[in-house]
Amino acid sequence: MSAYQQLEDTRKRIAALNNALGILHWDQETMMPEGAAPARAEVLAELQLMVHELQTDAALPDLLDAAEATSNTLDDWQRANLREMRHRYLHANAVPGDLVQHIVRARSESQMTWRRARPDNDFAALAPKLDALFQLKREEAAIKSEVLGVTPYEALLDEFDPGRREAHIDAIFDDLGAYLPPTIARIRERQAAAPAPLVPAGPFPLAAQEALSREIMQVLDFPFDRGRLDTAAHPFSGGAEGDVRITTRYSEADFVQSLMAVIHETGHALYEDGLPEAWRGQPVGESRGMTLHESQSLLLEMQAARSEEFLRFLAPLVRQVLGGNGAAWEPDNLVRLYRKVEPGLIRVFADEVTYPLHVILRYRLEKAIVSGDIATGDLPGAWNDAMQELLGICPPDDRDGVMQDIHWPEGILGYFPTYSLGAMTAAQLFATATRGEPGILPGLAKGDFKPLYRWLDTNIRSRGCLYTPDELIEQASGQPLGTAAYKATVERRYLG
Amino acid sequence: MSAYQQLEDTRKRIAALNNALGILHWDQETMMPEGAAPARAEVLAELQLMVHELQTDAALPDLLDAAEATSNTLDDWQRANLREMRHRYLHANAVPGDLVQHIVRARSESQMTWRRARPDNDFAALAPKLDALFQLKREEAAIKSEVLGVTPYEALLDEFDPGRREAHIDAIFDDLGAYLPPTIARIRERQAAAPAPLVPAGPFPLAAQEALSREIMQVLDFPFDRGRLDTAAHPFSGGAEGDVRITTRYSEADFVQSLMAVIHETGHALYEDGLPEAWRGQPVGESRGMTLHESQSLLLEMQAARSEEFLRFLAPLVRQVLGGNGAAWEPDNLVRLYRKVEPGLIRVFADEVTYPLHVILRYRLEKAIVSGDIATGDLPGAWNDAMQELLGICPPDDRDGVMQDIHWPEGILGYFPTYSLGAMTAAQLFATATRGEPGILPGLAKGDFKPLYRWLDTNIRSRGCLYTPDELIEQASGQPLGTAAYKATVERRYLG
Repeated sequence: MSAYQQLEDTRKRIAALNNALGILHWDQETMMPEGAAPARAEVLAELQLMVHELQTDAALPDLLDAAEATSNTLDDWQRANLREMRHRYLHANAVPGDLVQHIVRARSESQMTWRRARPDNDFAALAPKLDALFQLKREEAAIKSEVLGVTPYEALLDEFDPGRREAHIDAIFDDLGAYLPPTIARIRERQAAAPAPLVPAGPFPLAAQEALSREIMQVLDFPFDRGRLDTAAHPFSGGAEGDVRITTRYSEADFVQSLMAVIHETGHALYEDGLPEAWRGQPVGESRGMTLHESQSLLLEMQAARSEEFLRFLAPLVRQVLGGNGAAWEPDNLVRLYRKVEPGLIRVFADEVTYPLHVILRYRLEKAIVSGDIATGDLPGAWNDAMQELLGICPPDDRDGVMQDIHWPEGILGYFPTYSLGAMTAAQLFATATRGEPGILPGLAKGDFKPLYRWLDTNIRSRGCLYTPDELIEQASGQPLGTAAYKATVERRYLG
Repeated sequence: MSAYQQLEDTRKRIAALNNALGILHWDQETMMPEGAAPARAEVLAELQLMVHELQTDAALPDLLDAAEATSNTLDDWQRANLREMRHRYLHANAVPGDLVQHIVRARSESQMTWRRARPDNDFAALAPKLDALFQLKREEAAIKSEVLGVTPYEALLDEFDPGRREAHIDAIFDDLGAYLPPTIARIRERQAAAPAPLVPAGPFPLAAQEALSREIMQVLDFPFDRGRLDTAAHPFSGGAEGDVRITTRYSEADFVQSLMAVIHETGHALYEDGLPEAWRGQPVGESRGMTLHESQSLLLEMQAARSEEFLRFLAPLVRQVLGGNGAAWEPDNLVRLYRKVEPGLIRVFADEVTYPLHVILRYRLEKAIVSGDIATGDLPGAWNDAMQELLGICPPDDRDGVMQDIHWPEGILGYFPTYSLGAMTAAQLFATATRGEPGILPGLAKGDFKPLYRWLDTNIRSRGCLYTPDELIEQASGQPLGTAAYKATVERRYLG
């Protein structure tokens, strides 16, 4: 068997374990009885250890070298697959095992502390755990920086968005950081002058909201024969290859959050579902990193579903399923409601215009965390200053300030930028698609997503990891990732 | 690390994979979208292969030898654990890999053919596949017979009920085969003379039946914080260590089948839940084979739940939850209904008195299959003759005759006896328990299972695989497994 073939076999086994882990994680969040948590944790840890052992197998370096030496015998997909195998090998093997162990333990402590400290608004309790974790993450970043030949921050980012460079993000975020605050002020001024949107009055029974979710997912062509919708404490998209499972949560007082979460997660799920089936179980058949993944959820949620065309299709459907009546349910009002721009404290509740500022704040702080330029104890103050500067508001406490996200307590540094890079990508792809395919917008007006999906299938979904993220974006949209399309959407929707 | 400790670590890994497989199987039967079946099959196959590789690891023979050579350093549980490891090693390594592969393939073909052929009543289509599979199973039995030093049939049986011998089963089944037909005739005569039980008239809405299931499971102290109830095409008990999940199915026309299935599966689940927690993940912490497992489900379903005491507690509860009214819902009538004895074609619908005859028929035939004394093509005729002889009825077709069970098409030979050995064990254990603990029957009359469970926890559940199945039964009941207690129950309930 060729070296390349042996590598494929190893990846197939890793994929089987990851698929099992995907279903077990989904089960844990949706079905598992609470008392099974300790036993489940042991199963997950053992399976993750098996994945780790396969990824750090002593035979891999020679196999990778041998396969690369004869890569002229491989086709384009196989060569890309080999490139991705090398990339995953580097990430899995760069850091010595004892540092990995220390990080796992520090992460577990800091995350558990966060769960208690956040409700208590007690940053002082969290700080030492967070600090210990950040110190270890700096060590990891330094080692990976050497191996990958990139900056320490890029080395962390590289796991989530391979090949992304700080200079590129700086340019995009500096641009947005300058553009958004005055733009938001203009939008707010204009929205203040218009009649305030009416909020449809609840309660909205959970069963009706679930029916609405399923109805919308049908409209979005969610593959119910290869996927599921369930409820969980936090919306997510998960499952396994060929079995995409999304969740949402319902509040009786507000149906919009859940509705938009369902559209968002469906975007993630359709990306997974549309990956090249022939390459299932291989790295080249996986999604192209978190910026691209987020672009696919936001393309549905923010670009397609918040388009004038689709909102006018959606409004009567929502009214009918939820049994709404009166002026609050008129399409014009719902458009205004879905498009209300308002600076707030919490990232996950932010609208599409203020959202990037939440991310820019985190990006700047986490670069300082990785470089060591900021002390952990100074984070709350720095957070509040940046909120004031970027969004013009100041959190009354750390619970809804620096402690609001689980990312840092989990040791996840370098992930936040992908949310807004995904938003930029979504706008850029949607602009290209609608320019090239005149059937897309009229389709959305009828609830017909097929023209849009044809474009996405061809240009994004079916390509897996054949190209790098930046190559993929450039080939699909004809230009490097930038802010122009996003800004154009904002101007058109909010200031047009 | 000692050889014994290394063996424990290997088993811990196998247990993690088996726990993952348990949840994946449960998911497949309850939650998985249909279109995910091919992808899921690959995940299951890969994980099963990993289990197989761990069980046939080349290092195991030396580790087992070394651990056994120093077994004087181990305590009783560790020694029993080592004995079970050796037993599992023998079963996993006796048969050469290519024969295993052939069996896997033949089983898959025969099982798939059965799914089509049974509805079509087409035994001729199934016969060649079945014949090929039986031929391979005979090879397996011959090889294992050498390794284990038992008869070929015992070698197959040994995987399900370790240490069980044909002579013991023959004695029990010959006894029952002589006792039951005239006893059934006497019971039928007596029941014909009494007023026929009234059948409560449906339809019984599925939601009410599910509420009843949960109510009964609460009465049975099902650990809902470490377990679940769901619906599936066939009732089963599964899940993972510390996470016991049962299923049932509902028919609007009849609530009794599902109710009794829920009690039966709860018995299985409580056995798993009561296994020694300190030995989770190790062979000695597992259930003590299929005869014992079935004894635990039947002890609840047939002994406790069909006792006069419990039926009089159950009747008003059922009536209340299902909203029943009239003479059909009177306790006396429900007792008569649950205890109706009637020879039928289908094993899984059989009452507790006719059931063993279905098993005896299969046991006799499968011994002839393993010895090669019967040709596959002669099975339908032999089946029908035996049905006539034992139960006095003849199947009108093979669909409800020789093709009714999936066991043989799946290559499962040597399993059927455990159903009735389990029934005998259940009767023997229940008789001992109620003799020794006078609080048990009054407890059942109030829906209080704690006195019974205290006895079961001490004598069965907490013992895992510390002893062999026969040792366990003898220690718990003071005598070898026999038919006396079962026969006494039949006499008391049906002829008293």
